[in-house]
Amino acid sequence: MNKQFDARNLTMVMDLYEMTMANGYFQHEDQSTKVVFDVFYRKNPDGAGFAIYAGLNEIVDYISALHFSKEDIEYFRSLNLFSAEFLKYLENFSFHGNVYSFPEGTIMYPGEPIITIEAPIVEAQIVETAILLLFNHESLIASKTQRIVKSAQGRAVSDFGARRAHNADAAVYGAKAAVIGGAVGTATVLAGQLFDIPVSGTMAHSWVEYYNDEYTAFAQYAKTYPDATVLLVDTYDVLKSGVPNAIRVAKEILEPMGKRLKGIRLDSGDLAYLSKKARKMLDDAGLNDCIIVASNSLDEYTISSLITQGAAIDSFGVGERLITSSSNPVMGGVYKLSAVEENGKYAPRIKISENVEKITNPGFKRVYRIYNRDGIAIADLITKADEEVDLSKPYRYIDPIKPWKQLEFKDCTAIELQRPVIRNGKLACELPSAKEIAGYVKKQLDNEIWPEEQRFENPHQHYVDMSPAMYELKMTMLDHIQRKFEKD
Amino acid sequence: MNKQFDARNLTMVMDLYEMTMANGYFQHEDQSTKVVFDVFYRKNPDGAGFAIYAGLNEIVDYISALHFSKEDIEYFRSLNLFSAEFLKYLENFSFHGNVYSFPEGTIMYPGEPIITIEAPIVEAQIVETAILLLFNHESLIASKTQRIVKSAQGRAVSDFGARRAHNADAAVYGAKAAVIGGAVGTATVLAGQLFDIPVSGTMAHSWVEYYNDEYTAFAQYAKTYPDATVLLVDTYDVLKSGVPNAIRVAKEILEPMGKRLKGIRLDSGDLAYLSKKARKMLDDAGLNDCIIVASNSLDEYTISSLITQGAAIDSFGVGERLITSSSNPVMGGVYKLSAVEENGKYAPRIKISENVEKITNPGFKRVYRIYNRDGIAIADLITKADEEVDLSKPYRYIDPIKPWKQLEFKDCTAIELQRPVIRNGKLACELPSAKEIAGYVKKQLDNEIWPEEQRFENPHQHYVDMSPAMYELKMTMLDHIQRKFEKD
Repeated sequence: MNKQFDARNLTMVMDLYEMTMANGYFQHEDQSTKVVFDVFYRKNPDGAGFAIYAGLNEIVDYISALHFSKEDIEYFRSLNLFSAEFLKYLENFSFHGNVYSFPEGTIMYPGEPIITIEAPIVEAQIVETAILLLFNHESLIASKTQRIVKSAQGRAVSDFGARRAHNADAAVYGAKAAVIGGAVGTATVLAGQLFDIPVSGTMAHSWVEYYNDEYTAFAQYAKTYPDATVLLVDTYDVLKSGVPNAIRVAKEILEPMGKRLKGIRLDSGDLAYLSKKARKMLDDAGLNDCIIVASNSLDEYTISSLITQGAAIDSFGVGERLITSSSNPVMGGVYKLSAVEENGKYAPRIKISENVEKITNPGFKRVYRIYNRDGIAIADLITKADEEVDLSKPYRYIDPIKPWKQLEFKDCTAIELQRPVIRNGKLACELPSAKEIAGYVKKQLDNEIWPEEQRFENPHQHYVDMSPAMYELKMTMLDHIQRKFEKD
Repeated sequence: MNKQFDARNLTMVMDLYEMTMANGYFQHEDQSTKVVFDVFYRKNPDGAGFAIYAGLNEIVDYISALHFSKEDIEYFRSLNLFSAEFLKYLENFSFHGNVYSFPEGTIMYPGEPIITIEAPIVEAQIVETAILLLFNHESLIASKTQRIVKSAQGRAVSDFGARRAHNADAAVYGAKAAVIGGAVGTATVLAGQLFDIPVSGTMAHSWVEYYNDEYTAFAQYAKTYPDATVLLVDTYDVLKSGVPNAIRVAKEILEPMGKRLKGIRLDSGDLAYLSKKARKMLDDAGLNDCIIVASNSLDEYTISSLITQGAAIDSFGVGERLITSSSNPVMGGVYKLSAVEENGKYAPRIKISENVEKITNPGFKRVYRIYNRDGIAIADLITKADEEVDLSKPYRYIDPIKPWKQLEFKDCTAIELQRPVIRNGKLACELPSAKEIAGYVKKQLDNEIWPEEQRFENPHQHYVDMSPAMYELKMTMLDHIQRKFEKD
């Protein structure tokens, strides 16, 4: 473990308004009043049929480590916004609430509460920003990587993106998210160290230039790493210089040591053309087992195109377009109040907004994934928290997009997706490793998620349905507010 | 200062190949051999005429703090790639080289060396990844923010992006970069604390929902922050509920206290229409000094459009599209070897590559910004490091795009852009604050950079020219390599 990163404290990584609101609640409200906030998102990135949930381990670490240092409190004092009592209260601040969450790696859909925070109002408010940024960043990169991995049709994809990441965290936690999304590993050393994920790396162009002679550069590398020689062949000219020199090194340096050339890497030019030509040259030299790695601004579309063109590429190093999710660099996770404790019961809250798609689902809720007899996830179901779902008989539900339809689940099973991860501020479950999370993602995609949801073009939109009681609650609240403005 | 962030150590934030190469050099080469690497980029983000250089302070911090912990070295040992001698060497590793850099905040152009690292080969190689990711991230966000600020035509722009940033660093260092690019401040608390930049923040929708009655929510806020009441008016209905309640609070709560309503914020709906209607309602109520803040997926294009439509917006809170530079989320800074010490002299190196635009400029170099008599920067000039530039008489230079033209600088002055920031591993200059850097950016844009380079559509492309000797060196090396392959 790397101590500095392991011990990072994100308490002060927040929007100032969390604190202005917290101070306001602290001054005016009963501190013990509990509230419920939901984390959800409204649109799958890249027009996909789903997204992959990542970031939970870091959210748990963040909440567990929450505290304000003396310097932090002095900083707040210097802003002249906060009461002395509130600043005093911050000295012993920690999180005492409950966190319910989908397991990390769960395939998720727009509009359903992925994480629910139940805590005293001040505590619940303060954690908003950091929870969102961890959820948004890691889910974005996991989801993007999954698309790239799918496009590679079984060929290996590795994260090479650190240098184009949005600062150090994005490189490190992005690499973790990439592995969750299906990458075989990363080039980023600290990610390997922190998350026990495979790291790989060989040489840059600078190695070849340093020696000023490509053959010498390749030979020195092969002598140093005879079991893992992957040679970057495009510093001068791939077909006239790089591949011939790689073959010479295989024959003159490695074979006498009883070793084989592991691979070559192409990082520029027409990767389809060059890979096919290079493959033939390698094969003609008896190096059929030498793999070809390609890099250079790849993503799911360029990889699909390369494969369609018959490119002879065995492994892809994907950098900037993975680590920034460049085609869609924003994941729009939000944190919305859904209930406030009133007289010992949760009273639902709703946000209307000027944009219809921004209307929230009120109340403390549960989410079920509904499976058919073949184990395929046919829908997700949102219910009120105090409802029972009995699938032993046909279960009537509402499609909120087409509420007039009469619909039933028959012969289905349900799994509740949110589980307690923090109870009264303490860790309440075991957190899986990045590799285990990656395995869970793969299992769902291989066995449970319709292929029609997984395609890139016009994917099937997963049904996120409501129980009749949930639907009625939402409609009643909308109606109530609408009448209020009509009266005005 | 926040200790955890202040003490962050990025030593292990690197691609593994830095270490495989470093170990290779360590085993085969003379350790004292110095090399020269240049950091440059090839294309301005967003098709702009320039970019803003940011990240130097963090690069200096990174290099100054470089060291491997025992755990780090054990991690490397576990990879079974490195020699025992090399792992031993890492125990006392630190950086002993020189770093030359443009001042942070300098307007920069493609193809010129912004940072030059001169160090023993192992040290120079190891620092590649972190230097690039710091340079790329901060320069990207500073450059994007400058576009957004320009589009706002003097209205305030604040960074509201933390929740959509690519993890915590991206929020914090992105906020610093945003201020360098011209934002008046940020919502991100830790950025305010670390960089002494203004922070702002008022309320979220959750505040309004919590009280279940908009007027009560606004009243409570006004009582808490009578000098800084900015009310979010779109939770239910802007014109029927939000603005009328804000006006009531101004009249019933604030005016009796002798206070004025500072502002309202719109976060959804048609911002042009709503702001104009709200402005009229506020003015009719005598609240002409109440500002209107707008947020909701803004960027330079939506802001330009709002202003063209006559939107009555005084201040913009810009989130996801600023903090991710969503229209162009990748800054392509690279780190290329340009010279290697041979017999006490630097021998130039060049990278050819399959892509013409990836050919590098060889040798240890200098960069000058050339100003005309009006103080306008008319070109940048790249020379060999050992050349003298004498602008007291007309100076002949080469435009590398049109090398056949005869060109001269007349009546010009020159400023050398790279200055020593680290000498023999030690800080060699004072580092300015974020605010000072922001002032330097503004000074250049107001006084030195052509307006034609600053426009969004088809900006003038700044001339990055070469001295005749520099051009000759590059052409000679290209010619030499080409002949070699023709012979083969």
